[in-house]
Amino acid sequence: MARKRYLLTPGPTPVPPEVLAAMAEPVIHHRSPDFKRVLAEARVHLRDVFRTRNEVLVFTASGTGAFESALVNLLSPGERVLAVSCGEFGERWQAMASALGCEVVPLAYAWGEAPRAPDLGRALSESGTEVVLLVHSETSTGVVCDLRSLLGVCREAGAISIVDAVSSLGAVPLETDEWGADVVVTGSQKALMTPPGLSFASVSDAAWARTARATLPRFYWDWQRARKQQESDNTPFTPATSTLVALNVALRQLLDEGLDAAFARHAALGRACRAGIKAMGLELYSPDDDSAAVLTGALTPDGVDAVELRLALRDRHGITIAGGHGDLVGRLFRIGHIGYVDRYDIVTALAAVEAQLVEMGAEVERGVAVAAATDAFEAAVRA
Amino acid sequence: MARKRYLLTPGPTPVPPEVLAAMAEPVIHHRSPDFKRVLAEARVHLRDVFRTRNEVLVFTASGTGAFESALVNLLSPGERVLAVSCGEFGERWQAMASALGCEVVPLAYAWGEAPRAPDLGRALSESGTEVVLLVHSETSTGVVCDLRSLLGVCREAGAISIVDAVSSLGAVPLETDEWGADVVVTGSQKALMTPPGLSFASVSDAAWARTARATLPRFYWDWQRARKQQESDNTPFTPATSTLVALNVALRQLLDEGLDAAFARHAALGRACRAGIKAMGLELYSPDDDSAAVLTGALTPDGVDAVELRLALRDRHGITIAGGHGDLVGRLFRIGHIGYVDRYDIVTALAAVEAQLVEMGAEVERGVAVAAATDAFEAAVRA
Repeated sequence: MARKRYLLTPGPTPVPPEVLAAMAEPVIHHRSPDFKRVLAEARVHLRDVFRTRNEVLVFTASGTGAFESALVNLLSPGERVLAVSCGEFGERWQAMASALGCEVVPLAYAWGEAPRAPDLGRALSESGTEVVLLVHSETSTGVVCDLRSLLGVCREAGAISIVDAVSSLGAVPLETDEWGADVVVTGSQKALMTPPGLSFASVSDAAWARTARATLPRFYWDWQRARKQQESDNTPFTPATSTLVALNVALRQLLDEGLDAAFARHAALGRACRAGIKAMGLELYSPDDDSAAVLTGALTPDGVDAVELRLALRDRHGITIAGGHGDLVGRLFRIGHIGYVDRYDIVTALAAVEAQLVEMGAEVERGVAVAAATDAFEAAVRA
Repeated sequence: MARKRYLLTPGPTPVPPEVLAAMAEPVIHHRSPDFKRVLAEARVHLRDVFRTRNEVLVFTASGTGAFESALVNLLSPGERVLAVSCGEFGERWQAMASALGCEVVPLAYAWGEAPRAPDLGRALSESGTEVVLLVHSETSTGVVCDLRSLLGVCREAGAISIVDAVSSLGAVPLETDEWGADVVVTGSQKALMTPPGLSFASVSDAAWARTARATLPRFYWDWQRARKQQESDNTPFTPATSTLVALNVALRQLLDEGLDAAFARHAALGRACRAGIKAMGLELYSPDDDSAAVLTGALTPDGVDAVELRLALRDRHGITIAGGHGDLVGRLFRIGHIGYVDRYDIVTALAAVEAQLVEMGAEVERGVAVAAATDAFEAAVRA
């Protein structure tokens, strides 16, 4: 038979067959009533998933594109922006803000640390910056920050918040309106269970007000242009229509499950995965608590190269997981569990890691990982 | 049975079933050998279709996005750029260049006119601008310009050319290297027979050299970043993987047909469509010659509203064609014939226009349009 493949990275994530089937529907014209119905439905569903009454703008772009849209609509050349980082994506947004001509005031943590609200409060009052860049889920490390408290600090300081929720939205709680997030950015290819190619930004009234005095140049990313069109279920430029049709199928599935149920499922998957990793005697790199619901990062045993492990999982087992960066490239592997993932995906990943570690000469007790994961998952579901 | 639908607009265009099926394949990870193979193949095919040895950069964005990438990589704030316009898209690029902070030197023609090389030569020598924006196929009017002669003028003046080939590339001859086009931009959703969501820009050595002194801010659109990644079959940000897999299927189909055969087919489709329109006694709006191979624009008879005609074609016949803009909205309709279109799509469109015009009380001789189109197509194929 054809080789079965398992995609267990923190994005792109596996896509439900019904969503894939929607990708293959005949192309519709983007100025037709058919498309208007599609966009109208997506706008409603996106608001539900973002838990916001704000308009959620749709961009044909990667998540990085929608994040860039936030910077160019809210900032001016030379303006200072406070950028919180504790991993690859936080550092990407710092590089982006610099490249776009802003002055970055960094609040930088070591990779793997979580940003702390008091630090942010101090940095805001010392710097007087009016815009803050936050990463909800730092995909490079598995750290999901306490966004609610960070946003509370932003609100107190009167600063506009831009939140990278690319790998968090739909997987872990994010209450855009209740927590007062001004701009929340995500992409189609993570917990929203859709192929990559679309990204989204919800925009608060305060952020809209600020766009009027932000002078970074913009055209493709121009929010005013996008909103004006979206209000009549249009887009300013030809959108990725097929991906939007598929997105609606995925969002219906997510909302049918229920957002809170999805959050509970992701938390249970995280518990199961951590239990399995620890049962094998491996050291966790991602946090050992329920915040780590997006992915589980673990270190290989001494003498086992993480790159070799990943290549063998991929080539011998058909299982794609993610690696580490920088100093940790030879030690860290990351198992993603966002989106269309259930307990048996975790079982599969753990069974394969165990089998391959044994193959590579590591001392791992057989069977304990899957058993521990199963127990942890069932305990989580019963709780 | 389910209603059959016919998409005969100049983009998005109908997509072959094999390409749609590829959209539904399981999602692959963008940092995997599977994806590297996909991108490597796309890079080769794109060069073939662009007829260039230059790298063709891939963007997850609409065509407008790839065009913006050209401006921000080649221009600096306040710099003057000569922008040739004769319709909606030429005017869009003028608006974009202004929005990005450049000074637009317009060479503007009335909608429906074709730009002329001597005018461009004069405008270049008078203005001394170093960058020129050209539209190969002006989709709003059906005018395909004599790009070769316009590019000759740019080369003589030492100006860098940026060519919007969104609705032309793959449909009508475009010899990127032989004609000396510096930057050629296109999208996935026109003659490349793929759903929307990807766009492309080929970049000449002269254009690459210029990027070093262009200071418009850029990050998502940064060409250096894109090229550095593409050279190892990577992308800087998560790309629209499924659409890229589908693109390869479409490009293989196009290259299997042969580019020159595809150009001849489009020319024959244009002849067939014009013959049918004229046989019904309607007035052509697009040019009455083989340059009009992308779409046929025609005016409705007196007393027939073009918007009503289009709505009836869509709602009663399942056929989507395009309309007109501005003053011509009540008179102009446009039948696209790029991409996955054959003679029977033209027969379908003409038969439906005829039936609907009769229904709306116009005096149209029955049957003559399809007969004339058939004769014209067969004569073109025999020639």
